[in-house]
This record gives sequence, structure tokens and C-alpha cells, in this order.
Amino acid sequence: MIGAATIGGASAQDVAPEAAPETAEPGWRTIAPENLMMIETGKGPIVVELNPDFAPRHAERMRELAASGEYEGEHFYRVIEGFVAQGGLFDDMQILRWGPLKNENDRPYGGEGFVPLGNDDLFAAEVGHIGGFPVGRDEALGQEWLLHCPGAVALARNNDPDSGGTEIYIVLDAQRYLDRNLTVFGRVIDGMEHVQAFKRGDRAISNGVIQAPEQGEEILGLTIVADMPEDQRPVWRTMTSEGEPFAEHKRGLRVRDSAFFYRKPPEVLDICSFNTPAERVAAAD
Amino acid sequence: MIGAATIGGASAQDVAPEAAPETAEPGWRTIAPENLMMIETGKGPIVVELNPDFAPRHAERMRELAASGEYEGEHFYRVIEGFVAQGGLFDDMQILRWGPLKNENDRPYGGEGFVPLGNDDLFAAEVGHIGGFPVGRDEALGQEWLLHCPGAVALARNNDPDSGGTEIYIVLDAQRYLDRNLTVFGRVIDGMEHVQAFKRGDRAISNGVIQAPEQGEEILGLTIVADMPEDQRPVWRTMTSEGEPFAEHKRGLRVRDSAFFYRKPPEVLDICSFNTPAERVAAAD
Repeated sequence: MIGAATIGGASAQDVAPEAAPETAEPGWRTIAPENLMMIETGKGPIVVELNPDFAPRHAERMRELAASGEYEGEHFYRVIEGFVAQGGLFDDMQILRWGPLKNENDRPYGGEGFVPLGNDDLFAAEVGHIGGFPVGRDEALGQEWLLHCPGAVALARNNDPDSGGTEIYIVLDAQRYLDRNLTVFGRVIDGMEHVQAFKRGDRAISNGVIQAPEQGEEILGLTIVADMPEDQRPVWRTMTSEGEPFAEHKRGLRVRDSAFFYRKPPEVLDICSFNTPAERVAAAD
Repeated sequence: MIGAATIGGASAQDVAPEAAPETAEPGWRTIAPENLMMIETGKGPIVVELNPDFAPRHAERMRELAASGEYEGEHFYRVIEGFVAQGGLFDDMQILRWGPLKNENDRPYGGEGFVPLGNDDLFAAEVGHIGGFPVGRDEALGQEWLLHCPGAVALARNNDPDSGGTEIYIVLDAQRYLDRNLTVFGRVIDGMEHVQAFKRGDRAISNGVIQAPEQGEEILGLTIVADMPEDQRPVWRTMTSEGEPFAEHKRGLRVRDSAFFYRKPPEVLDICSFNTPAERVAAAD
């Protein structure tokens, strides 16, 4: 049901001018332009919401990388089917110049606005959503963290937990065993079908790095919407975790009451089996 | 980790002639050519293993559809990101001529060779593998069934549980709530990256059916390997569920002892988060 309610690819023509005020509709919020990141590729655009509440340093690094223009012409150079699409800077000197970030793999337990999923999870003591992002938490550990669900955007690293700096990966299929080991700092809210169309590497050869002369999907641009001229900024909104629309969305996925289901599925959800709906509500002319 | 150990796209040149006898290696089995189905597309070939043990009528129907040539030129006409890629016959008269199949959504509990996953599941009383296929079962219900994990191949239907006949779907991301409501009859053992590259429809428009003048990905051919000349048949093998190689494969996914994991992930697996490894061991010249 991933993306089930996402209105993808809506163009300016599709959206009535009066749609924009709807962003104030209860249960929805407009995504701040400084947290809205566009990755342009030949397959199509990928729209990412950054999460500075969980990963402020990582969100800031992405803003700096975008502003630098250094991602342009780089590639998703390691893409493994059913695992991740990894891309970013490739030149060691360039990577060294940016330097590593201290990880933000988790934060203290108890952030505001946690909405429990409503059933157990295989990997975490508790799962639910904060600000539309899937979250795991554990009171005994005293920590909470963003999950490696499909569409999660995170920072790649070497063995040192604080060694990531410039290469990101987008999760293709849930990889929950990576939770708390790497920093998830965003989520794809539109365009996962473009990521899924990227050329794959072979995991058996250089751990999935696409081999020359082939290159992975080129990154044509990386832009933070706040850096665009005000009259050209796309506007996206997403459901809040705490509103009735999201509760209703989950209920529809959990309780299948259509006649199609002659056998009632168990009333349970996998936290990674659905996205918080997001949609474009206005566009530049 | 899906497809992690799959040797995809191995050509005849890559495979030493002496590789074929390896199919007798303990813990592996050669897939019978009558259960090996190739779907040719412009994105690349998709290799499917049919499962006549769970769905004999459905396997037979696929063999008949392949032999008829009627899939050629048809399309994956309904493809929804993170959900399924559905394709097959589109003409109502043609569909009517083939007629519906009685569903094989599950079978009596207790089939031979069940190997438990080794931990709980959110949806089924028990999960594990039989013959390399992910299986759910429930002793109280007295039933067992194939799961809607990524790569599962199943028969689409209308509201009547016995109304499917000619249209198949390939699961893009786990859809466990469909378990026991539709008949899974096969699994993709190679080529999911090609399925993931198919053009998507918009779920909000005709429930994801790709709208004219666009068409979905064309099906260039549907072939059962047993129908190919003997000297041209590709040979594929897969791990058996009961052997030590598969147990070792699961252990490697469950217990992450590399230095990369400075925090030990919970020693748990999602039944849908990995595939039973399969690989091509010989090819036609």
C-alpha cells in the first residue's frame, strides 16, 4: 500500500489554485521549504522530506551539499535490488574535504507527538509515527530512532559509526536490521518508482558498485526548495501523525471490510508496509 | 537482502561447463523445467518458479497460457508503486474463453518439509519455508499457504474467490493482508529489478490501470522452459529449505557479527525480507 494515497506527478495544471489553502486542513501540515529536497534524475524527480528533529546535523549537511552544487553529475553508483540505492560524491579528496558527521542514529526516548502503530513489531519494543516518520523506540534503552522502511533516506558510512559524510542511500525494501546503526535523516514522499527504475549493480561484484564503463543513475540536480525563487517553489503537504485523517488511513489498511476479502485478514499492520500520505498542493507556473 | 545471493544475468560465457553437476550439491536442487517460466520484457527477462505442490491447477494454467502464445503482445497494464505489477489478457472475450479457476488459496495444514523461520510473525501463527517458498500456516485453521512476499506471483481475481483465470500479478512489496485471499502460485527467482522498472499507473486513476495512449510494459514472450528445445534450456537451481546452506543463509541474515554493526540488531527475521537463493548454473550455447 506504499504510496497508495500519494498523488504523484500532479502538474500545475492538475491543481486548482485554491488548493493551496487546504494545507491548513486539520490533520495535514505543509512541509517547510528548507526541509523539502528535490533529487533530479533522468528517470524523474525524487521528493524527499528532511527530518531535522531527529537528525539536525544531517539535514544541515544535505542543505550544504545541495547549495554547493557538488552532487550534480554524481551518480547512484551502488544499487542493489531489494536493498538500497546509494549515491553521492565519489572522489576521496572531495569526501575528505566535507569531512565526516557525528552520527544521529537515535535520540533520547520520549519525543513529543509519538502515535503508536497499534500492534506489535518484530524488531522494536514500540513502533509508531512522529511527524509522519516511522519511528521505533525502547524505554529501557532510553532511545528512539527513525526506521529503515522503504523510502527512508540515510547516510552511508564505513565501520566507524561517525564516518559518514557525503554519500546517501535510499532504502528500496525494509532493512530493519540497520536501525540504530546508521542515521536515517529523511523519507521519499514522491518518486520511489524512479528510484526503483535505477540500474542495479551485482552484489557479488564489488558489493554492488556498478562497474565501469557503466555508471549508475546520474544525479542531475540536488535542490532544497527554500533555495528556489519563492514563486517557483513547489508546495507539498503531508498528513500529521496525530490527526484523524492518518488514524483513518491506518484503519483502512488494518481493517479490510471490502467484499473482496472473503477471509478477513488479521487486523495488524507492518510499520514499513505503508507511507504517511503526502501530496503536492501547488506548483510554480 | 532480497536477491543478495542471486547470480543474475549470468551468461553462457560466465558459467564453466562443469558448473552443471553442482546442481546435485547438498542443500540445493535443480528446478524442474516444467516449473521454470520465463517472462520476456523490454526491461529484461523475469524468471519464475511455479509451485504445483501448492497450486497445481494454477501451474497448469500458466503452462497452457504459455503454450498458447496468447500472452505475447499483452502488457503489465496495472502497476502500482510499492504494491503489485499486474498483467495478462485484456480482452473480455478471450478471458471468458479461458474461464475462471477454482482458487488454491491454501491447502491442508502439515505439508512435508516445513522449516520454521525461527521467530514470530505479525500475520500468521507460524511461518517458514517449504521447497524454498515462504509459507504461513495455522494448525487451528488446519491450513497452510504461500505468502505475498516481494516477488510472489499470484492470480488476480474479482470479488468471487474463484473468478481469476488469466491475469497475474507480481508483488513489489510485501502485501501480507492478501494472504489466503488470492492464490500465490510462483515466485520470481531472478529479474525483480526489471519488474521494478516497469512504468507505473496512478492508483487514484482507474485503480492504477495505465491510461491510454500509454500502455504498460509489453510482455514479449511467456515460455515454460520444458517447451524449449532440450539443448537450449537454461538450468536454474535453488537452495532447498531443509539443507544446511539455507540454514547458514538465514543465520547470516539474523546474526550480524560484522564489525560494521557496533550495535547488535535484534536476532529476528521478517519472513518477507529475504529470498531463498537461486542461481543459473548452465545455459544454452
